[in-house]
Amino acid sequence: MPELRKNVLTDEWVIIATERAKRPQDFQKKRARTIPGEQERVATRPASPPGEAVGAGNCPFCPGNEAMTPPEVFAFREEGTSRDKPGWRVRVVPNKFPAQEIHEVIIETPSHQKSIATLSPSEMEEVILTYQQRYLAAEKNEKIKQITIFRNHGETTGASKLHPHTQLIATPVSSQKFRNQERVAVDYWQKEKKCLYCSLLKEELEKKERIISETQNFVLFAPYASQTPFEVWIFPKRHQPCFANISGEEIKDLSEILPKILFKFYSQLGNPDYNYVIQSYLSSTSHSQAKHWFFQILPRLTPIGGYELGSGIFINIVKPEEAAEFLREVI
Amino acid sequence: MPELRKNVLTDEWVIIATERAKRPQDFQKKRARTIPGEQERVATRPASPPGEAVGAGNCPFCPGNEAMTPPEVFAFREEGTSRDKPGWRVRVVPNKFPAQEIHEVIIETPSHQKSIATLSPSEMEEVILTYQQRYLAAEKNEKIKQITIFRNHGETTGASKLHPHTQLIATPVSSQKFRNQERVAVDYWQKEKKCLYCSLLKEELEKKERIISETQNFVLFAPYASQTPFEVWIFPKRHQPCFANISGEEIKDLSEILPKILFKFYSQLGNPDYNYVIQSYLSSTSHSQAKHWFFQILPRLTPIGGYELGSGIFINIVKPEEAAEFLREVI
Repeated sequence: MPELRKNVLTDEWVIIATERAKRPQDFQKKRARTIPGEQERVATRPASPPGEAVGAGNCPFCPGNEAMTPPEVFAFREEGTSRDKPGWRVRVVPNKFPAQEIHEVIIETPSHQKSIATLSPSEMEEVILTYQQRYLAAEKNEKIKQITIFRNHGETTGASKLHPHTQLIATPVSSQKFRNQERVAVDYWQKEKKCLYCSLLKEELEKKERIISETQNFVLFAPYASQTPFEVWIFPKRHQPCFANISGEEIKDLSEILPKILFKFYSQLGNPDYNYVIQSYLSSTSHSQAKHWFFQILPRLTPIGGYELGSGIFINIVKPEEAAEFLREVI
Repeated sequence: MPELRKNVLTDEWVIIATERAKRPQDFQKKRARTIPGEQERVATRPASPPGEAVGAGNCPFCPGNEAMTPPEVFAFREEGTSRDKPGWRVRVVPNKFPAQEIHEVIIETPSHQKSIATLSPSEMEEVILTYQQRYLAAEKNEKIKQITIFRNHGETTGASKLHPHTQLIATPVSSQKFRNQERVAVDYWQKEKKCLYCSLLKEELEKKERIISETQNFVLFAPYASQTPFEVWIFPKRHQPCFANISGEEIKDLSEILPKILFKFYSQLGNPDYNYVIQSYLSSTSHSQAKHWFFQILPRLTPIGGYELGSGIFINIVKPEEAAEFLREVI
């Protein structure tokens, strides 16, 4: 019988209903069988290098097409090159169709074909540094209450451009979800006088069964109440509510882990669509002892249906312990 | 600049960012342009009768294949026919891969080809009566805290079978979303001494701009903070927390409206994927003066991306007032 599990960080329930799927190993096959049009894709994508082999002539994110975007607000560039001209390695522009006043696009690489899963650690480092810089810049606006850095990979997840990019949206309000997570953390701290996130991490490290890997500064694990099959959290060991306070050493570390886990998805699960999100509190947040940022990766191997949207409860057909084992075993 | 709107029933924010889309009239065209593989579908589906023209030989929901499902728990049948044999008009079976102990499939019609949008009012009446019966049956289990009746139409929404069906899942826990909605309603009642839902309905009827249509017992409108383009709520005028207490007259009324609005989606928006959900409190709920059931339809014309999942805030690219106008105008 399926299992009800509670996400301790949000107090939200998830149903783990593994009878619907087979073992993680069968997942790619199952997906090819059940999602129309996916068979070809699963079969052909992993054979070619990751990334999208699509002509870049009209891509506004490609070098040479800088005039197609609003003027850039930040970039890592080759010496001697100028703003809004080629020569950048990472480029940030306001979204042409902003969802909010602060809505930026972080173009992660000049190469249209490249996948973030194949970025070198030094390339990835500049991407993470850019995330940090733009988070700090957004925070300067005193009206801002919530900053979300997120990435959509694949059409089913909202990606309308293939050229690798991440987005940042800052809002003068915070969501119910955000406030709820905050409340849960503060309640725990007031009762236990310790950080809920640090306690969770300690427990996961003791239990081991959901740990995927561990580095000097981070722990990768499949959360107990994973919302989607193969959900992964990258947890900083150092207690820190705000992502933007990430240290240089942590950035280096994260820049090695992140492409590695994304490449695992790519090679072992047939380049699935996924989202990733930096779950962070503002650096000026109150009750900072209670709060802890982390990096959340949500593969989108199964659709979000009426039950999830209507009830608020997600159904996950892969057991997190088995997902962790599977991701741990592959290179 | 995009607009932040708060759903008063949930206290949740939604971003209405219409610069991203054009007018509702352009939506079908836009969709065909931006979602790969959709062009053909939009072009061909509306020409053929609604429903899926797929062979039904192996469909476990088709008459003659009753042995392929768990034994039926309820049915409307022709006189003289027996359980788990053909002759049913609506049939309910436990889900073969249950997500919970109570997880049922309501097969809405024996006809694999038929779409619910083309059911006659008397056929639809038996479907709604079945919803009511199964809701009441699920409520008998005293452990149950939340009952969700929902429908997935189209592959991107979680529908794994094409044969028209609805599902019911009952859980011994209630979600954060559900408890939050409950809390908002009770807070309002304690402050204002009236039902938040009744107040909202009164306001919508006065403003008129989001009303799609009105019948003896129901009001159809596009909610002010619609989560998705063309979201529609069917609100009962009579104050009642629990769907299962729907009257015979209300069932008749709903059975005429529901296929009509679904047919509007089908004919005017190119048979979009959608979910619908009955948002209801148990009939034994406390503070029943504060609570009010309603019927929520969520077309899935745009993907749910990393921002929605990560932040909890939905971005909707069609203005609810324009969606209402568009749906009001079409037959």
